[in-house]
Amino acid sequence: MDIKYFQNRATIRNYTEQNISQDLLEEIIKEASHAPTCGCMQLYSIIVTRDKQELEKLVPLHYSQPAAATANMILTICADFNRFTKWCYINNANPGFDNFHSFLNAFTDAVILAQQIVTIAEMKGLGSCYLGTVTYNADKISDLLQLPTLVVPVVSVSLGYPEGDAKPTPRLPLNAVIHAEKYREDSDCDIKEFFKVRENDPDNKTYIKENGKENIAQVFTDVRYPGDTNEKLSEMYLTLLKTKGFLH
Amino acid sequence: MDIKYFQNRATIRNYTEQNISQDLLEEIIKEASHAPTCGCMQLYSIIVTRDKQELEKLVPLHYSQPAAATANMILTICADFNRFTKWCYINNANPGFDNFHSFLNAFTDAVILAQQIVTIAEMKGLGSCYLGTVTYNADKISDLLQLPTLVVPVVSVSLGYPEGDAKPTPRLPLNAVIHAEKYREDSDCDIKEFFKVRENDPDNKTYIKENGKENIAQVFTDVRYPGDTNEKLSEMYLTLLKTKGFLH
Repeated sequence: MDIKYFQNRATIRNYTEQNISQDLLEEIIKEASHAPTCGCMQLYSIIVTRDKQELEKLVPLHYSQPAAATANMILTICADFNRFTKWCYINNANPGFDNFHSFLNAFTDAVILAQQIVTIAEMKGLGSCYLGTVTYNADKISDLLQLPTLVVPVVSVSLGYPEGDAKPTPRLPLNAVIHAEKYREDSDCDIKEFFKVRENDPDNKTYIKENGKENIAQVFTDVRYPGDTNEKLSEMYLTLLKTKGFLH
Repeated sequence: MDIKYFQNRATIRNYTEQNISQDLLEEIIKEASHAPTCGCMQLYSIIVTRDKQELEKLVPLHYSQPAAATANMILTICADFNRFTKWCYINNANPGFDNFHSFLNAFTDAVILAQQIVTIAEMKGLGSCYLGTVTYNADKISDLLQLPTLVVPVVSVSLGYPEGDAKPTPRLPLNAVIHAEKYREDSDCDIKEFFKVRENDPDNKTYIKENGKENIAQVFTDVRYPGDTNEKLSEMYLTLLKTKGFLH
């Protein structure tokens, strides 16, 4: 099967007001649920937010970015060992999934499912966008969605019918990300060459100017992903993992 | 686009001796690299193990399971903030990615890429299998593949041409994994009903008998994923995150 979709896809950050039918949503999730899953356990849950009142509470937790604010729905995809653990108790089995290893398994399951949903939704003509902000407000989102023990939000995906076109973003050359047999530590010169594609992006020149920085790397480190914010978010998520029983 | 692939796919655990060409591998990874990625940072690396001598060292770290032992190649897909951090230093920018939040971003990126590789590879007629064992020996695999700071193995995928057919594994009913607006805690009765699909699987009856257990849940808790093993693996991975700079 030779599908042209993969190399031409692009993230959509603006959606029309057209509604996604419940049938289409369920068709997408049903197909996606055949993605690989750890030990056939399906360690995930999908919280579908599409009610206007509920979206009004959730969208600000994603900083009201257009990809959230214009979305027809937001899927919060969670690592979930709650359901499986309950099933074990019902069967007089002794579950031991309240630990970091189990979190990693459920995290992986949740992301695999999310990506399968994204692929299938886009192939069916919908637009989608991962909302990285889910881990910025994971604690508040957990409260809003009433997540119980052994359930934590991992990724959020907004869905809707695309408003306008989006163009694919250039990627690093393949030899930057592929390593043969052993990890190859690249020279500064090679790394500079790999990232030229990023440095030459005309959109980035605007960001550099707007933020008064010397180059696009400084926009990443000082504006988009500053270290002190990363540290605070790390503490918050680790605390959430403890609260939800995935970390001692 | 209506693709029948998704609901009919199945994991392949046995491969023929046919070689996957380097061109095909690169075509797959190139297409997959257009998957969504956090802030366009592409926080992953793929270590391709296909040399016979290197496979002889890596396969035992996956307990020589057929999906590893018969594979034409094993891809170890890593969360990687090393390359991006180096690029920041080269640009006189001050990176702050040595923390758990950044690990989560890179982990997500790595799994998204892995799942896109799996989908594309399977659509092109290859077979694939996630090797969950990557987190069982993540420390030894890191040493073997010479992973530097801010690089940790996240998922492994074996690839090859399928030997024989595989049948899709049944999935939980959709209403077990979808929640409308808020997380819905299901009754024991509903959970028992959801998992009937698992309990009725004829293969599972063999596992119950072989392991002298009362039911399949006990096979999961006592044999496949026992709590004390999960605890030990948690410690190991948390230590690895500290060693590689993602956790203080």
